[in-house]
Amino acid sequence: MAVDSRRPDANKVPEENDSRPRFSRLGVLISGRGSNLQSIIDAISQGRLDAQIAIVVSNREDAAGLQRAREAGIETMCLKPRDYPGRDAYDRALAAALETHRVNLVCLAGFMRLVGLPLLAAFPNRLLNIHPSLLPAFPGLDAQRQALEYGVRFSGATVHLVTSELDGGPIVLQAAVPVLEDDTVQTLSARILVEEHRIYPEAIQLLLDGDWSVQGRRFVRGASPHSRRA
Amino acid sequence: MAVDSRRPDANKVPEENDSRPRFSRLGVLISGRGSNLQSIIDAISQGRLDAQIAIVVSNREDAAGLQRAREAGIETMCLKPRDYPGRDAYDRALAAALETHRVNLVCLAGFMRLVGLPLLAAFPNRLLNIHPSLLPAFPGLDAQRQALEYGVRFSGATVHLVTSELDGGPIVLQAAVPVLEDDTVQTLSARILVEEHRIYPEAIQLLLDGDWSVQGRRFVRGASPHSRRA
Repeated sequence: MAVDSRRPDANKVPEENDSRPRFSRLGVLISGRGSNLQSIIDAISQGRLDAQIAIVVSNREDAAGLQRAREAGIETMCLKPRDYPGRDAYDRALAAALETHRVNLVCLAGFMRLVGLPLLAAFPNRLLNIHPSLLPAFPGLDAQRQALEYGVRFSGATVHLVTSELDGGPIVLQAAVPVLEDDTVQTLSARILVEEHRIYPEAIQLLLDGDWSVQGRRFVRGASPHSRRA
Repeated sequence: MAVDSRRPDANKVPEENDSRPRFSRLGVLISGRGSNLQSIIDAISQGRLDAQIAIVVSNREDAAGLQRAREAGIETMCLKPRDYPGRDAYDRALAAALETHRVNLVCLAGFMRLVGLPLLAAFPNRLLNIHPSLLPAFPGLDAQRQALEYGVRFSGATVHLVTSELDGGPIVLQAAVPVLEDDTVQTLSARILVEEHRIYPEAIQLLLDGDWSVQGRRFVRGASPHSRRA
């Protein structure tokens, strides 16, 4: 059969035969209920996110998110820090588990541990986190409470690449929400969570699509400065 | 003529006779073009802000905003720092000028000087500033450039009470704007300025209306916790 070599993608493997796309295997790290994990599962099942979750890893056996994952037919694993001599050993084991499952992109979803160098080195610019504030405002724990106590009128959610600086990596997507006069930590957190569930799958898709780079401390869409301004 | 004393405001002085309301005399401090001064002038002339500008003070003779003020029939004054032996002396002179003009609320509108204790003491919780970022992110100079270089997806404008902490006082109002992929300092600044011009008059009216308090570092609307949740 003759192939028209003028068609630029004539020799491309048809996508429907490519059952395991090379760059869309996610590893999701959790510590708790995994509501952001659920939003990723939902986005995949609804066709909004073209990816598969290769493994869900928790540092806690009792993380409710592990059950969510099992119910969705996703392989799970619990790596307990106390089974390792130190933080680096733990992070090496975590990186090895993710690599064994051929994970391309690691998504932190309420993973309550600092990410150390062994994991950062194994997945450079391939580690995403979501944080419940408009970073750089209110990094660290209890971001919603920090925002309320500061008295801001807007807060939000941030998806960012993970670096060694706590909540300080390049920002992929953000969403802003108003802070209302009678908000409590609970009502503000709920309003932010709606946005977290919206932007996390969107940011993952954006990362998987490629055509981005990190310039200085900025996440820049478009392969080059030329295409950005086209 | 009989007066129906059951009407609660039967004895109230009619507002149209109250040509100089006690709490609505503004002093506006500028250093440059005074675009926020213009937004205050416009809001007053359009009836969106129930106040009068008693005096516009600049620390620079060449501030274009002085001309705007004169064109609107507003008294202006230039206080040059070099005419005073130091910062405190300058701030005392500034406070005296504002008090002479019976100013109740001082609005910084691009006033490029740190406000010192003599002015803060003369107008406690009666000094407002507007800043082109969503504070606490990006305080200080060049806030729009800081936001672009950090790579945030949202920035905005903040009206806050002035305290001795630079850009750190209680937040009265904020507005959020998106940062676009191809924004420059100019395009982002222009988008933020639209919001500055909207929220500054609104925040001034809110201050003049009363029924607010400062609790800790927060600006809280409603006279008491009870009325807030009513």
